Amino acid sequence: MAAAAAAREQNTVPETSAVGDPIFSRVRLATSSDVPFIHKLIYEMAVFEGQTHLFSATESGLTSTLFNSPPFQSVTVFLLEISPSPFPSTVSPDFTPFVKTHNLDLPIEDPERDNFTPDISNDVVVAGFVLFFPNYLGFLSTHGLYIEDIYVREPYRGKGFGSMLLSAVAKQAVKMGYGRIEWVANVNALKFYEQMGVRILQKLRVCRLTGDALQAYDMVNI
Amino acid sequence: MAAAAAAREQNTVPETSAVGDPIFSRVRLATSSDVPFIHKLIYEMAVFEGQTHLFSATESGLTSTLFNSPPFQSVTVFLLEISPSPFPSTVSPDFTPFVKTHNLDLPIEDPERDNFTPDISNDVVVAGFVLFFPNYLGFLSTHGLYIEDIYVREPYRGKGFGSMLLSAVAKQAVKMGYGRIEWVANVNALKFYEQMGVRILQKLRVCRLTGDALQAYDMVNI
Repeated sequence: MAAAAAAREQNTVPETSAVGDPIFSRVRLATSSDVPFIHKLIYEMAVFEGQTHLFSATESGLTSTLFNSPPFQSVTVFLLEISPSPFPSTVSPDFTPFVKTHNLDLPIEDPERDNFTPDISNDVVVAGFVLFFPNYLGFLSTHGLYIEDIYVREPYRGKGFGSMLLSAVAKQAVKMGYGRIEWVANVNALKFYEQMGVRILQKLRVCRLTGDALQAYDMVNI
Repeated sequence: MAAAAAAREQNTVPETSAVGDPIFSRVRLATSSDVPFIHKLIYEMAVFEGQTHLFSATESGLTSTLFNSPPFQSVTVFLLEISPSPFPSTVSPDFTPFVKTHNLDLPIEDPERDNFTPDISNDVVVAGFVLFFPNYLGFLSTHGLYIEDIYVREPYRGKGFGSMLLSAVAKQAVKMGYGRIEWVANVNALKFYEQMGVRILQKLRVCRLTGDALQAYDMVNI
């Protein structure tokens, strides 16, 4: 990179190649037309986590449960998109997308890109998502945001896109006057979050009633 | 209890004292008029958990954030009430209260009862609560319920009231066709839940951004 910057200073190479491979990222609010991509992203995440046996999401299930209320009032999805060209700047009363320029040393090879291209007329690729919803903090009598899923596709990892998605949710929480964002992570993934100043609550465990164990409660006399 | 039952068989003591101390419990939907009790219960819970430094809930904060939408669509509170007399049976389209009769060996001494009496014309005492809201399961593309707070006041513990509150939430989840209920618990409290058939996810940790660490994201350039 230093050599490239020096070369650019001397105008010996064109500026676009001098900075390695500039790419452009955008975090935007997902809409119902993004459901096919959200579905594929959730499936990829289930594969990545070795939990395909727990995967039963369908496009129609997502369509009927997401986007039923204004953004941020219930389940909300941000999509991460990557493009070789700058994104047009847009402003929305709901959520103004975050855009960023990245200078990478190497181009990104994405063998699955054809499955993640919302618009065949351009080179924009869906590279990740974050799904979150409001929670509630009794101690503070205020709402917070809970991140259920955060995922970056394999070719796009290690480049800061995960923290870009997390930051977008954190900024939204602050904007709404919410007191906390919270999520659960596997013990193997904690280092990533600790580096970001996140507090890990080591004494808490997640408890779950699901499947037959939950259904059994329908038969229990209280 | 065996001696008391034998005495009752012989009609040597009145039936009410023969079965120990029968008391009656009810789990009902809280309303905005219950806010003073919800506030006191949350404070007691903060004391119990040694976390009063994190407590900043106010009655006005609770009033403005709870009961803004129909029950179960966002934050919902069930109250546990105890009475020496049977509760009248009521039916509601929103939620029909659960009522139960308990025969205790010893009467319950509640030094704080005057602070937890919704109606001075009767002997009903608020003994606990559960606060929960819908969450979302991407893998299943369905909703679930997340329990943020569950608490039984000290004189009423060890008598099955905690599992009564939990069961009421589980039954509601099944009724709504939801796939899961979930909550987090301190490692010291897991035995109680394990006895109830709850799955503990030992590899997951809760991650939290709050206070100054969250506010700092407002300044971060994405």
